[in-house]
Amino acid sequence: MALKSWVASANDAKTDFPLANLPYGVFTHAHTTRIGVAIGDQIFDLRSAASESLLADLPDDVVDACTATTLNPLMALGPGAWSALRRRVTELLAESADAETQRKVAAMLVPMGDAEMQLPAQIGDYTDFYASIHHATRVGKLFRPDNPLLPNYKYVPIGYHGRASSIVVSGADIRRPSGQTKPAQANEPAFGPSRSLDYELEIGIFIGQGNALGEPIAIGGAEQHVFGLCLLNDWSARDVQSWEYQPLGPFLAKNFATTISPWVVPLEALAPYRVPMQARPEGDPAPLPYLAGGGDAIEVSLEVYIQSRRMGEEKIEPMRVSRGNLRDLYWSVAQLVTHHASNGCNLRAGDLLATGTISGPEQGSEGCLLEMKHRSDPVKLPTGETRTFLEDGDEVIFRAFAEKDGLPRIGFGSCTGKILPAI
Amino acid sequence: MALKSWVASANDAKTDFPLANLPYGVFTHAHTTRIGVAIGDQIFDLRSAASESLLADLPDDVVDACTATTLNPLMALGPGAWSALRRRVTELLAESADAETQRKVAAMLVPMGDAEMQLPAQIGDYTDFYASIHHATRVGKLFRPDNPLLPNYKYVPIGYHGRASSIVVSGADIRRPSGQTKPAQANEPAFGPSRSLDYELEIGIFIGQGNALGEPIAIGGAEQHVFGLCLLNDWSARDVQSWEYQPLGPFLAKNFATTISPWVVPLEALAPYRVPMQARPEGDPAPLPYLAGGGDAIEVSLEVYIQSRRMGEEKIEPMRVSRGNLRDLYWSVAQLVTHHASNGCNLRAGDLLATGTISGPEQGSEGCLLEMKHRSDPVKLPTGETRTFLEDGDEVIFRAFAEKDGLPRIGFGSCTGKILPAI
Repeated sequence: MALKSWVASANDAKTDFPLANLPYGVFTHAHTTRIGVAIGDQIFDLRSAASESLLADLPDDVVDACTATTLNPLMALGPGAWSALRRRVTELLAESADAETQRKVAAMLVPMGDAEMQLPAQIGDYTDFYASIHHATRVGKLFRPDNPLLPNYKYVPIGYHGRASSIVVSGADIRRPSGQTKPAQANEPAFGPSRSLDYELEIGIFIGQGNALGEPIAIGGAEQHVFGLCLLNDWSARDVQSWEYQPLGPFLAKNFATTISPWVVPLEALAPYRVPMQARPEGDPAPLPYLAGGGDAIEVSLEVYIQSRRMGEEKIEPMRVSRGNLRDLYWSVAQLVTHHASNGCNLRAGDLLATGTISGPEQGSEGCLLEMKHRSDPVKLPTGETRTFLEDGDEVIFRAFAEKDGLPRIGFGSCTGKILPAI
Repeated sequence: MALKSWVASANDAKTDFPLANLPYGVFTHAHTTRIGVAIGDQIFDLRSAASESLLADLPDDVVDACTATTLNPLMALGPGAWSALRRRVTELLAESADAETQRKVAAMLVPMGDAEMQLPAQIGDYTDFYASIHHATRVGKLFRPDNPLLPNYKYVPIGYHGRASSIVVSGADIRRPSGQTKPAQANEPAFGPSRSLDYELEIGIFIGQGNALGEPIAIGGAEQHVFGLCLLNDWSARDVQSWEYQPLGPFLAKNFATTISPWVVPLEALAPYRVPMQARPEGDPAPLPYLAGGGDAIEVSLEVYIQSRRMGEEKIEPMRVSRGNLRDLYWSVAQLVTHHASNGCNLRAGDLLATGTISGPEQGSEGCLLEMKHRSDPVKLPTGETRTFLEDGDEVIFRAFAEKDGLPRIGFGSCTGKILPAI
């Protein structure tokens, strides 16, 4: 039986933020920027909690971290600190809290509608993986019809470095990028607005405690370095990508913007939704020993919605265009972390890893528009409009939640962005 | 006729740091970390200069920036501020300075030998380009014998994002990385220490003033965003690289370490060494309009030295194994900056761009060991040892300088690292 909160909206069956979730974020309200915890439709202001001694039984470094304006100091403290803070916040928000506590904490709640969310952390480095074999296979077919899945895929958790500076928080508009593109039939490339703008449905993984340069992270301890998860949209200009990506990988096709959801769901909140990694198909190689036996999958439903400008004008709700699940990855979160550090590369608190586009095997679970090119039926919106790629004015909305019989649903909030025309 | 300094060592014909250079760096001395300017074999402590009112005629933001512990605030101020500070520092260190000034400044000099150099800036994002067509062609032959230079090369300044966290300052030891490698004749990859560890001779480009997300940088103004240059060694594990790099580019093959020299040579100091970009060979396409007419080349001699452990034990000086020149790039610094921001990607003060390995057309100008595989004669050290790739205990030393008749030589200092055995 799940604990209830004295914050009424946290007990609503439809909330993303019940007492069992308690994701962390950074918000601005009344001209100050603070760390908060989402509870129902409210934000519990941790800086006020720290300054009013509501966290006084916690170690000083935890209390100090709660007064910062990014989550980096808290992330750096590691799982013991995260658990202790989570326990304390749970006590403060549970209906078992005494009246005096409830009165004090109530004064530290800010309605979400009154707050402006910020990036949760200062992101030092951003790495994007390619952990969905279904995505890699479908996209590989388009770029390399004869050779969709390269020989390294089942051995190497393929990844590349993305751009940290252009990571924006949900709600920020996305300017359509310009770039060099070269249609197959053209002799020369031309520079202009991308005509193949796409989203990529991903989960972001915030690193907590880092590792020193030169010191790998063993697979058994990898999850101890993970603070929590968020939604991530790795916007992609496919026409720019196909022309530029050889031989050093995607660059300007991706680095114009990446959107993340503002709330970081603690790994601890997702514990009930862990499932064993799916057995690899017959004939696939076992992971090499440094990646073996590492980490569970996590069942998180993922949804993509689109609302075109016309839909907005006609008050038509966003339409769901696909649905996937985080569990459908070829590599676990632990394997991604261990592989990343296997050469001694140092991860730092606040670094962001992303899974890569998450797609399932079946039609309707494609994590980006590019993959839907294989489908006989293009994406058709309620207005009759169709979409091969995104049009100006389209808003893309990701949602995610973990659910299980008898447990409250743990949501990620949303990760949205609307396309502005090119300059 | 070049100005002389009252700091005697700055007038030595062999110094890297005459009055005409004045590179910026960050150093630690007597337990405090400060910004300094190299002059001869001394460091002029700019924080002391600021606090003793020697910079009092400069705008407050410039004076404040000189009291920081990274160069980021100064970088962010832009070319007007950089020129003003450079003029003032030149006046203070020139032999025309009055005796009272000389006495004051002399008290703010720290011998280089007593200081520990730090990274000059907090590097938000690190981007590595591939701007040497000679390097791209020689390496392309090894990875793709039939197709060394891909069709996009002469249109797109190819680049990719590197790792900011593992950038270290000259002198830091480099741990040999482990990783997955798969020899051509093997059926499966194996995990272990890289057997093909290489250096890459590059120039780093520190961004000064940034651009807002969504706002490109026109080619005509691109150099206004460049604070200065340093040496950069993009250490590479070739065996890891060849197995992992498809389809998303190099990742663990590179991100275990990148070394930069501690002194950032202002672009203004290099003005006398500008030369027009070499005409593109007959038949090569002109740069697309957004990259056209942009920027000069800069004549900077580049040298690579190796000292093996045995050479060190036998007191044999490091041996020069190659020599190149920054002018031999297919793309100018301005073109790299403009291309990077052409999709609206935001560059920030302190971001680091690198040219990619700088190689010339002729034998002896290869910027990495990988390219020398084409040579009939392998690298042979004075001890009789040969090198296809780096061995444990090898120290790699880069040096760079600009020189011209009648002008003092402007040096970059050195960029060094010694290989430690794998864990």
